[in-house]
Amino acid sequence: MIDCANDFALPTPSLLLDLDVLERNIAAMAARAAALGVRLRPHWKTHKCIEVARLQARHSAFGGTVSTLEEARAFADAGFDDITWPLPLPLTRLVDARTLARRVTLRVVVDSEPAIAALVRESATWHVWLKVDCGYHRAGVDPDADALIDLAQRIDQAPHLTFDGLLSHSGHAYRAVGREARAAVAEEERQVMVDAKTRIEDAGIAVPAISVGSTPAMTAVEHLEGVDEARPGNYVFFDHTQVALGSCGVEDCALSVLTSVISCPPGADHAVVDAGALALSQDPGARLATPRTMGEVLADGSPMRLDGALRLVSLSQEHGVLNRPVPVGTKLRILPNHSCLAAACFDQYTCIRGGEVIDRWQIRRERS
Amino acid sequence: MIDCANDFALPTPSLLLDLDVLERNIAAMAARAAALGVRLRPHWKTHKCIEVARLQARHSAFGGTVSTLEEARAFADAGFDDITWPLPLPLTRLVDARTLARRVTLRVVVDSEPAIAALVRESATWHVWLKVDCGYHRAGVDPDADALIDLAQRIDQAPHLTFDGLLSHSGHAYRAVGREARAAVAEEERQVMVDAKTRIEDAGIAVPAISVGSTPAMTAVEHLEGVDEARPGNYVFFDHTQVALGSCGVEDCALSVLTSVISCPPGADHAVVDAGALALSQDPGARLATPRTMGEVLADGSPMRLDGALRLVSLSQEHGVLNRPVPVGTKLRILPNHSCLAAACFDQYTCIRGGEVIDRWQIRRERS
Repeated sequence: MIDCANDFALPTPSLLLDLDVLERNIAAMAARAAALGVRLRPHWKTHKCIEVARLQARHSAFGGTVSTLEEARAFADAGFDDITWPLPLPLTRLVDARTLARRVTLRVVVDSEPAIAALVRESATWHVWLKVDCGYHRAGVDPDADALIDLAQRIDQAPHLTFDGLLSHSGHAYRAVGREARAAVAEEERQVMVDAKTRIEDAGIAVPAISVGSTPAMTAVEHLEGVDEARPGNYVFFDHTQVALGSCGVEDCALSVLTSVISCPPGADHAVVDAGALALSQDPGARLATPRTMGEVLADGSPMRLDGALRLVSLSQEHGVLNRPVPVGTKLRILPNHSCLAAACFDQYTCIRGGEVIDRWQIRRERS
Repeated sequence: MIDCANDFALPTPSLLLDLDVLERNIAAMAARAAALGVRLRPHWKTHKCIEVARLQARHSAFGGTVSTLEEARAFADAGFDDITWPLPLPLTRLVDARTLARRVTLRVVVDSEPAIAALVRESATWHVWLKVDCGYHRAGVDPDADALIDLAQRIDQAPHLTFDGLLSHSGHAYRAVGREARAAVAEEERQVMVDAKTRIEDAGIAVPAISVGSTPAMTAVEHLEGVDEARPGNYVFFDHTQVALGSCGVEDCALSVLTSVISCPPGADHAVVDAGALALSQDPGARLATPRTMGEVLADGSPMRLDGALRLVSLSQEHGVLNRPVPVGTKLRILPNHSCLAAACFDQYTCIRGGEVIDRWQIRRERS
């Protein structure tokens, strides 16, 4: 019977962070960025945690990346002074962003005329990246459109704006299964960005830097010639989706949710655990992963591996339904589909090393 | 062009709570419970908010229901002293639950021998409900099994345990579209519970009460003869799922997410807003709702109604993708698929009345 983690005298659900694996992942990505010749500006949105960011900084990370202004404030309060916020700047947050930009270097991202016009109207100085669509087709300027040159020129010519360069996110690497497919997305991103830089520079505008990144691309890319900076985030923890994409093995996953079986009706073909949508998120995981799961149960022992037969088939707010009966009281560790969203369900990491709980680290998930 | 809510000088994303609608919903459910002759013990997991619970109490709610022990503590700290925690008791939380049970009436729920045995071993006194599977087939004892009598007897005979009665959750009402289908689920639940009580009382064990409930069942049920208490939660806010089930109209929805368009690449057939999975959750909504949506855009004006053509088709962590281009800077209000999970993304409600922001209420989403 699967009955791991009974040695942890912890409440359930708890969010377990294996520090040995975390440190290995941080060191490995730092080495990879160095080998590829790019600056590493990790995306802190995955962990939202000062201690993890400090570990990354000790492994030569250069500043960081956030997904919300609240995260940016939390990291600024902790002494980090060079922060990129790559969400296309919401005009509703201009005043808040300016306030923060007075005490740290806050680098904002734009992909539209209205956002640039709003920045130009401000008297404050701003560091500005121009977002380019590298094939993901979510946000970003079409690299072949006239707008690319026009917007770069607008930024470059505005007296208060510092043009930091071109920025992209290869989110479509999350649809690429296997190393070759991910490497192809990464190379597409690199090529699009280098070509975009050439187009802009041919128009007489200097492009100081190119920033790219996603974890599945960074773990597969063969070279990053012409690129200056990468912003992967998920690699600190990895998760079931990254395993399905081939970005990592299960043994590289640092984050799991400790849960316990709370119901197993006699005769039923399922059991219920106390980890639901507010412990794991309802992220459906990688599109091509089979079987589909809302969270995969880990086998007992170290290194981590999947049980293989036992998984969550549905989640409601605080209940998770397992696909097989398991006795009430059994503790299980679940590998989440998406570690960024699972982490955002909790207020703290329970940090473990070699089966011992050694620390608790706060998760800065404030949302105003 | 849809461009509502531009009057709110608010950051985006913000969670808007319309107090007029909220109060109407609370009063309506209180009246409904009174007409049905049942005590209303609302599920606070939807709102996790002291102010909303106080409004419910003023409308004759009797205590409340929570989905986590952290919620229970928050409401106990605010002076609420009669709380039911209907998650089958996790054995890992026994000590924490006992600590709380010393200062308020904490009613726990069990459906298994190991959970009852754990309570019996405790010297403290406990109020205990026995959970019965009323057809949802998630947790709960099979009402036809011998275990029903055995477990009721175990609780009844244990010197420190007070048997509160039989409790059910008609979660399968969320698969029932239309009033008739929901009423059928509610009647099934009522009948199962009344029959279960009869079986147990025939074995010589008094069953003090029956507690049932879900919002889609409570809004449709024709009578609740034999039932003592109902625990609906979602009705305070409603959401897109409840609209799809026919539990309410759009004008009854009290909760929306204010968002702004942050990217609309020229030539693209979509736009991007700053409300993603951490503002709306990734709840996929009602299974039978068409078209499928991750959040439906509301039209401008009051009462609320759906735009009808504009909706979110995908969400990532902080990005939402609209199905049509909309100019950057446009503010939109989104009706979430699942208000309980959307509320759990935020730290506060921005309370509005007649288009004015009049208050901010804290959301107690702590998770240890």
